[in-house]
Amino acid sequence: MADGLDIPARPARPGLDLATVLGLGGTAVLITAALLLGGSALSFIDLPSVLIVIGGTLLVTTACFSLEDVARTLRVVRTTFRASGREPREAALKVINLATLARQQGLLKMQGPVLDLLKREPILHKGLSLAIDGTPEPEVDSILRGELAAMVDRQRIAAQVLRKAAEIAPAMGLIGTLIGLVQMLGHLDDPSRIGPSMAVALLTTFYGAILATIVFTPLASKLERNSADDQLVGRIYLLGVLSIGRKDNPRRLEMQINSVLPPGQRVSVFQ
Amino acid sequence: MADGLDIPARPARPGLDLATVLGLGGTAVLITAALLLGGSALSFIDLPSVLIVIGGTLLVTTACFSLEDVARTLRVVRTTFRASGREPREAALKVINLATLARQQGLLKMQGPVLDLLKREPILHKGLSLAIDGTPEPEVDSILRGELAAMVDRQRIAAQVLRKAAEIAPAMGLIGTLIGLVQMLGHLDDPSRIGPSMAVALLTTFYGAILATIVFTPLASKLERNSADDQLVGRIYLLGVLSIGRKDNPRRLEMQINSVLPPGQRVSVFQ
Amino acid sequence: MADGLDIPARPARPGLDLATVLGLGGTAVLITAALLLGGSALSFIDLPSVLIVIGGTLLVTTACFSLEDVARTLRVVRTTFRASGREPREAALKVINLATLARQQGLLKMQGPVLDLLKREPILHKGLSLAIDGTPEPEVDSILRGELAAMVDRQRIAAQVLRKAAEIAPAMGLIGTLIGLVQMLGHLDDPSRIGPSMAVALLTTFYGAILATIVFTPLASKLERNSADDQLVGRIYLLGVLSIGRKDNPRRLEMQINSVLPPGQRVSVFQ
Amino acid sequence: MADGLDIPARPARPGLDLATVLGLGGTAVLITAALLLGGSALSFIDLPSVLIVIGGTLLVTTACFSLEDVARTLRVVRTTFRASGREPREAALKVINLATLARQQGLLKMQGPVLDLLKREPILHKGLSLAIDGTPEPEVDSILRGELAAMVDRQRIAAQVLRKAAEIAPAMGLIGTLIGLVQMLGHLDDPSRIGPSMAVALLTTFYGAILATIVFTPLASKLERNSADDQLVGRIYLLGVLSIGRKDNPRRLEMQINSVLPPGQRVSVFQ
Amino acid sequence: MADGLDIPARPARPGLDLATVLGLGGTAVLITAALLLGGSALSFIDLPSVLIVIGGTLLVTTACFSLEDVARTLRVVRTTFRASGREPREAALKVINLATLARQQGLLKMQGPVLDLLKREPILHKGLSLAIDGTPEPEVDSILRGELAAMVDRQRIAAQVLRKAAEIAPAMGLIGTLIGLVQMLGHLDDPSRIGPSMAVALLTTFYGAILATIVFTPLASKLERNSADDQLVGRIYLLGVLSIGRKDNPRRLEMQINSVLPPGQRVSVFQ
Repeated sequence: MADGLDIPARPARPGLDLATVLGLGGTAVLITAALLLGGSALSFIDLPSVLIVIGGTLLVTTACFSLEDVARTLRVVRTTFRASGREPREAALKVINLATLARQQGLLKMQGPVLDLLKREPILHKGLSLAIDGTPEPEVDSILRGELAAMVDRQRIAAQVLRKAAEIAPAMGLIGTLIGLVQMLGHLDDPSRIGPSMAVALLTTFYGAILATIVFTPLASKLERNSADDQLVGRIYLLGVLSIGRKDNPRRLEMQINSVLPPGQRVSVFQ
Repeated sequence: MADGLDIPARPARPGLDLATVLGLGGTAVLITAALLLGGSALSFIDLPSVLIVIGGTLLVTTACFSLEDVARTLRVVRTTFRASGREPREAALKVINLATLARQQGLLKMQGPVLDLLKREPILHKGLSLAIDGTPEPEVDSILRGELAAMVDRQRIAAQVLRKAAEIAPAMGLIGTLIGLVQMLGHLDDPSRIGPSMAVALLTTFYGAILATIVFTPLASKLERNSADDQLVGRIYLLGVLSIGRKDNPRRLEMQINSVLPPGQRVSVFQ
Repeated sequence: MADGLDIPARPARPGLDLATVLGLGGTAVLITAALLLGGSALSFIDLPSVLIVIGGTLLVTTACFSLEDVARTLRVVRTTFRASGREPREAALKVINLATLARQQGLLKMQGPVLDLLKREPILHKGLSLAIDGTPEPEVDSILRGELAAMVDRQRIAAQVLRKAAEIAPAMGLIGTLIGLVQMLGHLDDPSRIGPSMAVALLTTFYGAILATIVFTPLASKLERNSADDQLVGRIYLLGVLSIGRKDNPRRLEMQINSVLPPGQRVSVFQ
Repeated sequence: MADGLDIPARPARPGLDLATVLGLGGTAVLITAALLLGGSALSFIDLPSVLIVIGGTLLVTTACFSLEDVARTLRVVRTTFRASGREPREAALKVINLATLARQQGLLKMQGPVLDLLKREPILHKGLSLAIDGTPEPEVDSILRGELAAMVDRQRIAAQVLRKAAEIAPAMGLIGTLIGLVQMLGHLDDPSRIGPSMAVALLTTFYGAILATIVFTPLASKLERNSADDQLVGRIYLLGVLSIGRKDNPRRLEMQINSVLPPGQRVSVFQ
Repeated sequence: MADGLDIPARPARPGLDLATVLGLGGTAVLITAALLLGGSALSFIDLPSVLIVIGGTLLVTTACFSLEDVARTLRVVRTTFRASGREPREAALKVINLATLARQQGLLKMQGPVLDLLKREPILHKGLSLAIDGTPEPEVDSILRGELAAMVDRQRIAAQVLRKAAEIAPAMGLIGTLIGLVQMLGHLDDPSRIGPSMAVALLTTFYGAILATIVFTPLASKLERNSADDQLVGRIYLLGVLSIGRKDNPRRLEMQINSVLPPGQRVSVFQ
């Protein structure tokens, strides 16, 4: 069970987060179907409205934070579509296997292909490289904790940015609709234009509701939910790297990891 | 009073939670009556509207969490319709009776039919099985506490999922109504279609309000309310199982249980 | 001043809470006057609308809690219309007078008519009965504290039930209005029915707003406000009963009571 | 600088709070101007609407609290229009001057005109009277702390009453508008009455918004903001009165006062 | 690397905060474009509406606070458009360079041009002047901490003022729209005036939404976000000034500064 060949198998699975992809994609399909069913879906596309709502939301959100915060949010948001590397149990098995391999074949044997296979887990990859280089344990501990703290911070700020965007989008939608209504009311003498003008005026409210409800709010919620898992996985990787660096018995590592895992997710490779 | 025959009598009562069943069922009857009274209730059923609101709410809620969180919520929600096994006083009487029976007839006598009768109380059933198998007390304590913590966690996440769904449902309703309004406004030239189109557009808002007000919010509130009772019952079962394992005097168990029961719910089997 | 005849005088005053009665009653008169002024007040009464809003709110609120919670709320709410026995200063004078009387005439003399006069103050009545029966002080203390804790708990849950009802009532009003609007929009071809149908549709929103604004919210606020006073009065009664049981000097009781009373409400019967 | 003649000069300035007076008065002028500009401002006055919104808000707010709470709020609210005696730096200079005067001329010399000039600062006046009467320091300390605590409590409850009124006013406005709309919809057959009826129906919403936005909310915010200043001034008066009673060196008082003043507001009479 | 010439180079860059300027400016451009695209942008300008919303918001916000609070807010808000001097890493390099320069050339050499170049950083400028004057370390520490506390306080109050204004602006917009609607409804007999009157009535809601969404809310968010950075920079300046005053080794200062910098922003001038 505790053989090193388990490790290569995993990074090959890119691992999409089915809940995010099916949830948001499915909603988009549902809404598009509703638009098509009601006739021409083209009447729901109006470039100035798109610009006011999407552009305005992005610009005002940026003003609330900084250019770097927003750019970092875009990078962090991509992780909500990725499922792999977030399962604490799987992470536990992975580091226990790595520790067993390192003990059997020596730490230096892990340098080449094994290390390459861990590219998708930056914290584990960095920690293992440091351990292979013989960096002293307190320094490895301090560097990895710094990386974990920075990751948590990035996720917290990204969630704040998304929450703020979810607040601004409907407000920009309302502003767009008010502009459209005021413009329409100046031309009430031509009744044939009332309907289409009202329709266009309502589009910005529609865009604002879509952005807030099926884009920003779910992504912020998902990010906050994933953050707890990511921290747990990070702690497991930290335990593993320190254990490998100390050339500890993997059985002791398993015990340490089980003490941070929730009951029911505990692993038992050796026992 | 403290005879073992009390125990079999209870699990036979499936025990519906009258407040949940009458509350939600009664409201459904009231609203259906109002629909029928106003003419054809069929005009309140529109498949695309149902799909957008119910489907969209489920999909977006799933995207906010994970497939397992949502599946687990569906399982936990069923407990809000079940009343039995939630009354702390009843649970106290049950474990005191079990402890008396175990003391009189020996722990091994409880294996067969008695244990079977407790199938509906997984924590009590598991604890008693462990005690009968002679598992050491610290291990029983640790396993049951883990089960209790996992139960509390499941309930907390399920309540979060329901609260989030109660937030998303009206937003999906608004999105559906905006789609309907924009489509209607493009056909203002045919006045005979305005009324029915508006009616259909409003249906999604109606579905969203129904889902949030009489489905998700009450279930979330109920779940949070029941969680405190379930934890108290769990603690009573834990006290009972440990006492049975130690072959303690049931009078001492009664005292221990009374110290965790709120005043006014205390039991007095022996005194 | 400190003579026992003061005590009988008080329970005779049933003591309505003028703020609650005048506040809610006055608002009801104002609104009824506005309905009458605008013509027929009968057009504001529609049985199905009443059923949906009042019935629906009660049913959904019950589903959020339990039948006992709701029944208990109805009992607790009645106390918000009662003013007597909530004034800490008056309670302080009452127990000091009782303590003086008990010291002068002996504890047993208090059994008959004096005890009967305290029926409206269950905690004081129960405490005094226990003291007369010679119950040991720690037990009296524990029983009265249990009663106080149970009272606070009942008030807290009742306030939660009322707050939840204040949240559900406008939502049920909206659901009723949506039903009315959809039904009306199906008959736009008969313009003479539009006005009255719209009027009936709006009635549920009106009922929901009335229930939330002038029934549930003020009662919940009042309950929370009174709870602090009731706890203080309860503590004064507890101090008094323990002092009477110990046959302490009433002057010492006065000092103890003054230390829990807010400055400006302190009493000085002896000094 | 430290001469006693500084003191009489101040109480002569009644001291209106310009922010409150200009802010609320200016807004009232702006809105009245907008009403006059649009034609007859009389069309904005409707006695039944005024009664429902103002009367209803007062009555429901009273029901949420008690008659005394509301009466006390009216008294406390008047202090938000008064600016004098709230400036910590000015209070510090005043008590240091008083302490210097008391040291130079003796405590008894302060009884007549000096004490009369402090009538507008009840805590300082009461404290000084106690010090002149030779009340022991611990008692002065306890009495003044009691007065301060009672003042803070009055302000906290007054702010709660105003916040609740700001919540109820728009709800009463909505109720009034719903009454007007239902009455109007019963007379749709006479189109000439629709406009004026709608206008009257909207008046209650207008009144509710005015009451909440430019009366209750700003007064509550102002009260909360002033409370912190009043507490600081009260602490400075307490330090001063105790120092005068002890016949301390005013230089020591200055040091004590500077340690509670925020940096930048510190005083330096002697140094 | 550690030469003093680095310092002059920086204050020359005035440093606009691109996120604030592009965010708010871009949104203004987007909205103006939308107005122009829909025909005459002039129809969106109505002086009485501007007065009611902007004037009313300023006046009511002032009434909630004080004239000084609002004036101070205007000063603090300007800092949200300035980017320079907020980057902790840059501040760290600046004080380490200053400390090296002071050590090489002596503290007195820093008086003339070097001190002048730091005018844009009031805390650093004041601290360095005090150090050059030979003020004892505890006093420098106390004065700079007082300045930092006052700065944090100003920023906190300014953010509160902006949040309150963001709350009041839409309410004033609603009040203006209600005035316009009531005035319009009195002239329903002239249908040609309905459209333009409604348009003008909606303008105040439009102004209120604009003020809240793209002025007050983003500025308040930005201010709160910047405050944390400003405090960190202030702490770095404090460490630097104390180190310069003690004539410490700049290497020790670098270590001290790195211990308060987040990982990833640490500097390494010497090592």
